[in-house]
Amino acid sequence: MKKFINAPEAVLADSLRGVQAAHPELVVDFEHRVILRGTPKAQGTVALVSGGGSGHEPLHGGFVGEGMLDAAVAGEVFTSPTPDQILAATKAVDRGAGVLHIVKNYTGDVLNFEMAAELAAADGVEVATVVTNDDVAVQDSTWTAGRRGVGVTVLVEKIAGAAAEAGADLATVAALAERINANGRSFGIALTSCTVPAVGHPTFDLPDDEIEIGVGIHGEPGRHRIPIAPAAELAKHLVEPVLADLDFTGGPTIVMLNGLGGTPLIELYLLYGEVAALLEQAGVTVARSLVGNYITSLDMAGASVTVLKADDEVLKLWDAPVNTPGLRWGR
Amino acid sequence: MKKFINAPEAVLADSLRGVQAAHPELVVDFEHRVILRGTPKAQGTVALVSGGGSGHEPLHGGFVGEGMLDAAVAGEVFTSPTPDQILAATKAVDRGAGVLHIVKNYTGDVLNFEMAAELAAADGVEVATVVTNDDVAVQDSTWTAGRRGVGVTVLVEKIAGAAAEAGADLATVAALAERINANGRSFGIALTSCTVPAVGHPTFDLPDDEIEIGVGIHGEPGRHRIPIAPAAELAKHLVEPVLADLDFTGGPTIVMLNGLGGTPLIELYLLYGEVAALLEQAGVTVARSLVGNYITSLDMAGASVTVLKADDEVLKLWDAPVNTPGLRWGR
Repeated sequence: MKKFINAPEAVLADSLRGVQAAHPELVVDFEHRVILRGTPKAQGTVALVSGGGSGHEPLHGGFVGEGMLDAAVAGEVFTSPTPDQILAATKAVDRGAGVLHIVKNYTGDVLNFEMAAELAAADGVEVATVVTNDDVAVQDSTWTAGRRGVGVTVLVEKIAGAAAEAGADLATVAALAERINANGRSFGIALTSCTVPAVGHPTFDLPDDEIEIGVGIHGEPGRHRIPIAPAAELAKHLVEPVLADLDFTGGPTIVMLNGLGGTPLIELYLLYGEVAALLEQAGVTVARSLVGNYITSLDMAGASVTVLKADDEVLKLWDAPVNTPGLRWGR
Repeated sequence: MKKFINAPEAVLADSLRGVQAAHPELVVDFEHRVILRGTPKAQGTVALVSGGGSGHEPLHGGFVGEGMLDAAVAGEVFTSPTPDQILAATKAVDRGAGVLHIVKNYTGDVLNFEMAAELAAADGVEVATVVTNDDVAVQDSTWTAGRRGVGVTVLVEKIAGAAAEAGADLATVAALAERINANGRSFGIALTSCTVPAVGHPTFDLPDDEIEIGVGIHGEPGRHRIPIAPAAELAKHLVEPVLADLDFTGGPTIVMLNGLGGTPLIELYLLYGEVAALLEQAGVTVARSLVGNYITSLDMAGASVTVLKADDEVLKLWDAPVNTPGLRWGR
């Protein structure tokens, strides 16, 4: 295993030090492993907290900042953060208008965020929760009952974050987050496994000429394997199950073509060209797109596509300014 | 070789289609393989053109847009674009105030940009050229006489781009670009080789327990190899030769910790934490930092550091708004 690390057990603590060094506009709570905005929101505004296992950067810490999250809670690599950590983040960002927890559907995350929400409620902090479950690849999986939460989480964080920033109340922000999750679908494929630092070898064996179709962001198995194929063919494997699961015609969509960590941008753009062509053939209108590494799986080579049914309100919230390390644009 | 491609000979054309699909705000001239702003600059403003071999994305096409480049010329992977391509880009963006060519110091690039500049001059377009050569690792190399141009190119494009946007004339923008190059130094290390699609196997063999110190962005050899070591140790290999080559104390600096394409963000942040600590120990003040993939080498796992001596003028230009796929921030 060749990685830029000091020791497998120090990966999270050491990388948080780097985040703090690189982003003086953020505050890292090293005790609780929480990344917070340096300048908190105004009193009376809904706050957003997300989190989960590390290894998916920029998700979630890279999405803390104006227009997106108020805090991100970092677990060890591919391991849920504890209720104590989540509680600390929730209490730190509450501005008296309640806190939305954005949780990817993995059993550990769901349980620990639930417990933290109960503890926060006992302390007088109102918490609403959205659990994302957009991955159409498999029904149950290694760490999940039901569908896995993947790429749509980025879109929920951006769009609900914009609504909270604009002053929407907790019920409104939570309902919007639910609607984004309900209208988004994702699918991923892997060219290689990832290697968890504490394990030291690839999570799964994938022969040199095979591709995992429907892979999860922790290297959980997908639907099946196929021989290596041209990008135009692989794009069909990404897009078809998404379009089969929900009707995306008849309105605008937001599309994310996401790299899983080890795939260079030239390949992501190439693949996006194929994805865009397939969507056009299927009568799907792409109003906004995002190509890059947004929710990764350590060093895994691979990609996922996320398609979201949008409308004018959603596009307006998407276009609102955002200022985070991982997603940044102006007015 | 497992990559998201259709055929090795179609990689560039196919990826340009994806760039156009993902970025309606840009215009791709598919004939000349040039990426241009959709909304050209005002008449009487200096334009910036860069380019080179593909495989370093987001450099250069991802840096086209307000506050940075006016056009980027894409050669085949790791291959210089031709004078005809560069000429077409230069003539397309000239607004009567001249064009700055930003060229990384590789023999093919230097010759072809030089020829294009002569042809443009014959057509009445004034061209100034800055050749970047910031890589302190080696003096001459596979495709270079003198030092290689690497990470500082990103900083030159941002800072000179801001000056051009603000209305500086060609002599001023060119002198500024020269000054940025003269005040910047870089050094890179590789954990793995890259694989050029048209070749189909890794460019160089690097044993599972060794690291290439001083690697170039095309997999050119560096200074030597060392056994795998902790990130804190590798950070010294990155930082020490840079600090030994130029005195960075006594004023602000801009620091870029750049991923070479296959290294995930969690490792880059971890490594940046070590780099920042070493710079602080050496009395270097980091005023601005950038951590991510900006000048890559296909799927190579590795990183480079670039340190730039700045001043108030340079920091102001750095902070100026930029709106490109690869670098984007508001006022």
